[in-house]
Amino acid sequence: MSDPKELDALVEAIAARVRERMQQETVPPLPGVRGTWNDQSSLKRWTQNVVSRVGSDGTVGKESEGLARMIDHTMLKPDATRADIERVCREAVEYGFASVCINTTWLPLAVQMLRGSRTMAICVVGFPLGAAVTTAKAAETREAIRLGAEEIDMVVNIGALKSGDHDLVLNDIRAVVKAAQGRPVKVILETKMLSREEKIAACALSKAAGAAFVKTSTGFGGGGATAEDIALMRQVVGPDLGVKASGGVRSAEDAASMIKAGATRLGASASIAIVTGGQGKGAY
Amino acid sequence: MSDPKELDALVEAIAARVRERMQQETVPPLPGVRGTWNDQSSLKRWTQNVVSRVGSDGTVGKESEGLARMIDHTMLKPDATRADIERVCREAVEYGFASVCINTTWLPLAVQMLRGSRTMAICVVGFPLGAAVTTAKAAETREAIRLGAEEIDMVVNIGALKSGDHDLVLNDIRAVVKAAQGRPVKVILETKMLSREEKIAACALSKAAGAAFVKTSTGFGGGGATAEDIALMRQVVGPDLGVKASGGVRSAEDAASMIKAGATRLGASASIAIVTGGQGKGAY
Repeated sequence: MSDPKELDALVEAIAARVRERMQQETVPPLPGVRGTWNDQSSLKRWTQNVVSRVGSDGTVGKESEGLARMIDHTMLKPDATRADIERVCREAVEYGFASVCINTTWLPLAVQMLRGSRTMAICVVGFPLGAAVTTAKAAETREAIRLGAEEIDMVVNIGALKSGDHDLVLNDIRAVVKAAQGRPVKVILETKMLSREEKIAACALSKAAGAAFVKTSTGFGGGGATAEDIALMRQVVGPDLGVKASGGVRSAEDAASMIKAGATRLGASASIAIVTGGQGKGAY
Repeated sequence: MSDPKELDALVEAIAARVRERMQQETVPPLPGVRGTWNDQSSLKRWTQNVVSRVGSDGTVGKESEGLARMIDHTMLKPDATRADIERVCREAVEYGFASVCINTTWLPLAVQMLRGSRTMAICVVGFPLGAAVTTAKAAETREAIRLGAEEIDMVVNIGALKSGDHDLVLNDIRAVVKAAQGRPVKVILETKMLSREEKIAACALSKAAGAAFVKTSTGFGGGGATAEDIALMRQVVGPDLGVKASGGVRSAEDAASMIKAGATRLGASASIAIVTGGQGKGAY
């Protein structure tokens, strides 16, 4: 499957099935929402500057602000306390991160703390296994939107994908997109668990279902973002969707490598290390 | 906190707060449902026979049937396929396990495959982080019951517990108990992440909220069931609730040790190894 023509053929075959299925239904267009998910110009500028500069003096200088606007500052550990969430929110505002990415139980606190800032409260759904039934994922999404979430990071139904049940995968994503009422939905593929063909199918199905982003990893399933996966995902979804690199992004070098490969958003817990030129720890 | 009187005082303090909060509301009693969760007599018999016998000839003989009826045969991996779930259901019926424990996406398949057998289809909710907002856990539970789940294994809100927010922990469990409409609810504590005081509080709150079981581990959070934790949990909840040992239970010896410590249900993926005297692998 290294032949680009074969890739195109597979994506087209999936797209044809999807179009057929959606003849009577339309996926709502994404309205203009607050966020940086499609800000290609500042992105390109940052990438051009940083990719060549980073590492010379250990920091990324002024461009770190542009970089910060691409980072979802993430705290998903199950044992995170109220104090942890409060700290992450304060950090996100201070450094100007795009968002704070948390579990839904912390949304009321985060929304309150981020009010009036440029930083969004975003959350995960069906996380991290992706194996909750579709109606439950949709209900969690509706509740998250009600509580003020500005973006939804859902996990694809990995088992259905691996069972070849593309209909279920598509409808699962579409139900969450619908429940998100126009807010951008990211589809986490958990790339570590997928074959190349499964990654391609998941990207094509995400795009067809109206997702705004595809995203590499949960940080809980082993493995993480690789430049190779980012490039493949970008190739399949084209220029219109966002691609988020998550899992193991811990330094400015990691960030630059992901952006160079096609990422438009980064998920990280080591966000401060990334924008200040340090080296973070942890799986996410 | 090794003094039993201190333990009693802590449990009583939590119970008093809970009673105060619930003055106007009542927790519905558990109706008689199909299952083995409160079958103390067959349990005691099995324990007495097996604890002394196991290991002499490598099998547990006739008593393995009683043991099988205590096991939730478990398949929670996110990349489990339709074929994996079908295999687990066939195994559960063949060996007479109490249930098949799966993610909610597989409930329709499992309910269909287990129809007419003694084996229940049960599922996890808010799994494995326990950090979904209460309304989402309740919605997932309602949907699971609608699809035919006979028991619900929910994860406690670990972050709220560690933040000392006992009200939220209690109400989270109560909402799931209510949504389960009389079906037994197990509360997974993820003991590895908790201090002794937090384990005690979680057990007291689970009991107060109307849960049918407390359970040690998700199998995804590191660590697993220990005899010490089982004994502590049994001490706090008393004789009326079930205690489920899960995570790392892989042999008849493991099973016997957990039952001796007070477990009335076992969660395992190595269930066949357990009842045939072998040694299983994997984290769950």
